[in-house]
Amino acid sequence: MPRNRQLNPSLTVPKSPLPPLLYTDTLISPDMLYFGRVEVHDPFIAFGMGGRKYTVVSALEFGRVKRTSDFDVVLPREKWLEAARARYGAKAGPAEIIACLAKEYRVRRFRVSDDFPAALFLKLRDLGVKLALANGLLFPEREIKTDREAGCVREGNRLCTVGYVVAEKILRAARIKGRSLLWQGKPLTSERLRFAIEVAIKEQGGNSGDAIVAGGDQACDPHERGTGPLHPHELIIIDIFPRVVKTGYFGDMTRTYLKGTASDAQKKLCATVRAAQLAAIRKVRAGVDGKDVHGAVVATFTKAGYKTTHGKNGSRGFIHGTGHGLGLAVHDPGRLGPVSAVMKLGAILTVEPGLYYPGLGGCRWEDVVQVTAGRAKMLSRHPYDWEIR
Amino acid sequence: MPRNRQLNPSLTVPKSPLPPLLYTDTLISPDMLYFGRVEVHDPFIAFGMGGRKYTVVSALEFGRVKRTSDFDVVLPREKWLEAARARYGAKAGPAEIIACLAKEYRVRRFRVSDDFPAALFLKLRDLGVKLALANGLLFPEREIKTDREAGCVREGNRLCTVGYVVAEKILRAARIKGRSLLWQGKPLTSERLRFAIEVAIKEQGGNSGDAIVAGGDQACDPHERGTGPLHPHELIIIDIFPRVVKTGYFGDMTRTYLKGTASDAQKKLCATVRAAQLAAIRKVRAGVDGKDVHGAVVATFTKAGYKTTHGKNGSRGFIHGTGHGLGLAVHDPGRLGPVSAVMKLGAILTVEPGLYYPGLGGCRWEDVVQVTAGRAKMLSRHPYDWEIR
Repeated sequence: MPRNRQLNPSLTVPKSPLPPLLYTDTLISPDMLYFGRVEVHDPFIAFGMGGRKYTVVSALEFGRVKRTSDFDVVLPREKWLEAARARYGAKAGPAEIIACLAKEYRVRRFRVSDDFPAALFLKLRDLGVKLALANGLLFPEREIKTDREAGCVREGNRLCTVGYVVAEKILRAARIKGRSLLWQGKPLTSERLRFAIEVAIKEQGGNSGDAIVAGGDQACDPHERGTGPLHPHELIIIDIFPRVVKTGYFGDMTRTYLKGTASDAQKKLCATVRAAQLAAIRKVRAGVDGKDVHGAVVATFTKAGYKTTHGKNGSRGFIHGTGHGLGLAVHDPGRLGPVSAVMKLGAILTVEPGLYYPGLGGCRWEDVVQVTAGRAKMLSRHPYDWEIR
Repeated sequence: MPRNRQLNPSLTVPKSPLPPLLYTDTLISPDMLYFGRVEVHDPFIAFGMGGRKYTVVSALEFGRVKRTSDFDVVLPREKWLEAARARYGAKAGPAEIIACLAKEYRVRRFRVSDDFPAALFLKLRDLGVKLALANGLLFPEREIKTDREAGCVREGNRLCTVGYVVAEKILRAARIKGRSLLWQGKPLTSERLRFAIEVAIKEQGGNSGDAIVAGGDQACDPHERGTGPLHPHELIIIDIFPRVVKTGYFGDMTRTYLKGTASDAQKKLCATVRAAQLAAIRKVRAGVDGKDVHGAVVATFTKAGYKTTHGKNGSRGFIHGTGHGLGLAVHDPGRLGPVSAVMKLGAILTVEPGLYYPGLGGCRWEDVVQVTAGRAKMLSRHPYDWEIR
C-alpha cells in the first residue's frame, strides 16, 4: 500500500540511553506492541529500566499479560492507583501513577515518543517527572529487523500470494459479456473479489480488512478500495496488506491485472512500472540513500515519457513515494521517497512504483525487500501473467 | 468487549468554541473519522473554522478526499508545504504548515485533543500557534448519537447475530466424544469457530478481526481470544465486535454457550449474569449516574453470593466495568463503571456484566442500549438457548 511522499523528514536518531515510557494501547501503537509483545486494547503504562520491561495493567489484563507478554515485571494497576490517590488525592490517574513509579524506581528522566499524549506530557512535567522527546523514533532499533521478524513479514507476504492465487482463479473463470465481467452467473464486483481474497487469507491465519481491488479510473486514486462491477479490458489493481494474526506482522504486495485484451498503451504502462521496480530494487543496499531508489523510478518513468502533473482536481502520473518500512505496522519506520533517508542494514521496505492516468488506468507493482550489504533480499515472490484472457 | 474499570475519570467537558485542530490518521483516531468521514491511513492536518471543515492532504489522497469526505475545503499539501518552506526553511513539516494555515485563516487559537502529539504541540507553541487542550473530549458531541448513528450501530449488532446464528449451528452439529467436541470429523477449536463466524460477518459487509471465542478457564481472562480445542460441558464465551465496512461503526455483543449438559453451578452463574444485566438495563436513563448502573450489577452479584477477589496471579469474580460507549470505536466515549459519569441523552452504551471463576468458567452477556429520557432503547437483540445439547 503506497505511502505519501512527504512525512517526517528525519528517521536517523541516535539511540537514547534514557528509559522509555509509553502510555497508549496496541491498537494505536506498534511501539507498544514491539515493546511488550502482547495486545492490550485500552491505554496502559509501560516503561523500561536497567534492561527490564515494566508494565502496569488492570485486573482485567493482569493474568494474560503476565502469562503471554515480554514484560519482565507486571504491576497491578489497582494497587498503584491506590498509592497515587494516597499521595495526590482522589482524582489521581495515569500521570500520578507514573509519578509514583518514577519515585519508587528512581527514574530521573524518561524518553517518550513524539506522539506521546500532549495532556499527559504537560501533567507529568507539572508533577516533576522529567521527559525527553525521542525527536524521531522511540525505538530506532524497530527499523532494523531480525531474521525472525523477516520470517514474520515473509509469512505475511505468503498470505498475499494466497490472495492472488484466488483472484487469478476467479479472473480466469470470469466470462466477458460486452462491457461486463460475469462470475458464477453474476457481475464480478470489487466487493466479491475482495471477499474471496480475504476469506482465503483468513483461512490461512491472516486478517485482511480492506484490500484494494480497484479497476479502471477507480485505481487512479491509489487509496480507493474499489467498489462495484469490474470491467473487461481494464487494469485492476489488487493491493493486499494482511496482518499475520499470530505475530502481528504485516505483508504488503500489489499486483495489477487485466481480464480480456490489453491495449498497447496498457502494455507499455505495465512494462514500464515493472522496469521501474526492478531498477529501484537494484539500487537497494545498506548505506545508500533511499532518495536514489526513488530517483531510479522517476528516471525510468521520465525516460519512457510518463509525466507527473498536479491539477486542481487531483494528480496523475507517479503520485506517491516508492516504498515504506513494513513490520508491526503497514507503514513502519523507513521510507523510499524524494527526501534523503539512508537505508539501514536489516531494514524491510516495500518497493512499489505506480503510474495513474484516468482514462488509461492505474498500475502498481509492489514487492518487499530486506536491505543487506549486497543485493536486496526478496521477502515476497509472486510471478504472474497480468493479462488474463 | 469489556473495558477496564478505571480510565480517565471525567467525560463531562463544556463544549469549547475554539476551532479544533487535528493531526493524526483515521486508523488511530475515531475523532478524525468523525470529523472528516473519510479514511486516510497516514497522518494529516484537519481543522474547523466558522462552521466549515478544512483539511490538507497530499496528491495521493486529494481526489478521493475531495470526492467522498465531509470536508468543505480540501487543500493540497504540496502547495502548503512549499509555502511553509518559503517561510521557515527547507526542514518545514506539519508544524510549519499549520503555522502558515493559522496565519492565512487568522486563527488565533486552536483546541486540540488531550492525545495530540506532544512534539507537535511543543513545536507549534514555539512557532507562536496557541493551543488549548480539550481537557476531556475534543468533540463532546461524539458521545451523543444521532438516529443515523444508532442505525449504524444496530447494523453492527445485526452482524453480531449473523455470527451467533453460525456459531449455534456449528455447536448443534458438533458431536460430543468423551472430553472432545468433533465437527465435520475434526476437533472443534476456537479458531475454527471464529473463522466460521468471521467469514459469515464478512459476507454481510462487516469486518471482525479478532472475535473472542474462549472456553473453560481461557474465558476467565476476558480479553483472551481463545485458542485450541473447545470442550463439552464447559462455558464458551463468544464476544463479537465487528465493524460495518460501509460506515465505520461497530457492533458489540457477547453470548455465552455450553455444548452438552450444564452443571447447577454453571446454570446459576449464567442466570445471575443475565439477571444482573437486566437489573442494569432497568437503571439506564438520561441524567442517571452510570455508577448506579454498575452498582446494580454489583448488588445482584453480591446478593447471589458471588465474590470478587484480586490475587497475586489474577482476579476472579466481576473484574471489569459494566459497559462502555460504542460508535466509531469499540471503546467509544461513555462508560458504566464505579466512577461517576452521568448518562447523556442519546448516548450508546454496552451493558455487559460478567463473572469469571477458573475451574467453573466464565460467563458474560452483552447487549447495546441507547439512553433516552425513559426506558433504554435496545439496539441489539439475540434471544437464545445457551445450553446446546
